[in-house]
Amino acid sequence: MAKHDKIDVGVSTILNPVPVVMVSSAGKEPETEFGRPNIMTAAWAGTINSEPPMLSVSIRKSRHTHKLITETGEFVVNLVSKSLCKACDYCGVRGGEKEDKFKSCSLTPVKAEGLEYAYAIKEAPVSISCVVKSVQELGSHDMFIAEIKAVTADSYLLDDNGKLCLENARLVAYNHGEYYLLGEKLGFFGYSVAPEDIIRKRMGKDKKK
Amino acid sequence: MAKHDKIDVGVSTILNPVPVVMVSSAGKEPETEFGRPNIMTAAWAGTINSEPPMLSVSIRKSRHTHKLITETGEFVVNLVSKSLCKACDYCGVRGGEKEDKFKSCSLTPVKAEGLEYAYAIKEAPVSISCVVKSVQELGSHDMFIAEIKAVTADSYLLDDNGKLCLENARLVAYNHGEYYLLGEKLGFFGYSVAPEDIIRKRMGKDKKK
Repeated sequence: MAKHDKIDVGVSTILNPVPVVMVSSAGKEPETEFGRPNIMTAAWAGTINSEPPMLSVSIRKSRHTHKLITETGEFVVNLVSKSLCKACDYCGVRGGEKEDKFKSCSLTPVKAEGLEYAYAIKEAPVSISCVVKSVQELGSHDMFIAEIKAVTADSYLLDDNGKLCLENARLVAYNHGEYYLLGEKLGFFGYSVAPEDIIRKRMGKDKKK
Repeated sequence: MAKHDKIDVGVSTILNPVPVVMVSSAGKEPETEFGRPNIMTAAWAGTINSEPPMLSVSIRKSRHTHKLITETGEFVVNLVSKSLCKACDYCGVRGGEKEDKFKSCSLTPVKAEGLEYAYAIKEAPVSISCVVKSVQELGSHDMFIAEIKAVTADSYLLDDNGKLCLENARLVAYNHGEYYLLGEKLGFFGYSVAPEDIIRKRMGKDKKK
């Protein structure tokens, strides 16, 4: 068959690659087993609005994190760097009811910027503090629609001018059940219509490889 | 400062990496200028539910694609391979009212599997046919919440057993305004708790690199 001959592969959650993030939260009583700071991994997450900045995370009702977010209306989306990938996977396969996943993964809970109850993961390069605006029950998952209230980043990600250089965070993407480091840089927004000298300037480093 | 010293970097759409997809659609009268098959690029997209498989795409009201989807309630999410990256960028910076972007990018519209009006992009490795279930007005963007009705893939992506090998599609991720090819494979879902022989089997190819 020719390269673009098409085959019907059946209905599934096939949109890829997607983000993979560590969602941290806590209950109103963080000293109890129920309310202690917890982490779960989510790939059904994404940006949904620019002004104001909003994101969504879809979570099954059965997950402990669902209960914590429902109690407080708050959570933190922590981005995942290469060094966090194994902990990220672990937090996706283990439940938080009986296990302190911060402790299991040797991660450090820190109070989340701009929120009352939730904790962020200190070892994450970027932590996004979110407040739930509404919840959509979709079937297997409930989609938490949230507004971003604060963002903190590791200081080493800022250059001398204070610009955030996220390309230095070694972020992980999720693709069809597998975790991948971002690889070759192919372009930047607008590169298809940009003048040649701008392209050289912004792609130069990569082209030398 | 130590590596995990935190800096408040201000509120923005900082969740990364995110998908970057080409959304194709058409009006009820595809032979007119208004209704002809069109493509726009979206990064505010993601899987939101597993059963039934659902995804969302957020689009500004001003975009031509918003009008087409509103007319028909249908669209197609086309995944972006390395060879489509430049066309993907082009379709993100140009409007569809006055320009036939299929023609500008030398792409081929084909009737979308399982839909009445929308067209898919023949050159995309995977095309996901979607029907809108509801719309959420969030501010700058409207979020189209949609159910996946059919998925078609290039035949070369299926192995001899009919298994979809999406890792061969050379998919592109979007990270903080830049397009990246997926790079090093770091693991698979469950690898943090998997037996060593399973890890060797599934990671073997990459470890030899």
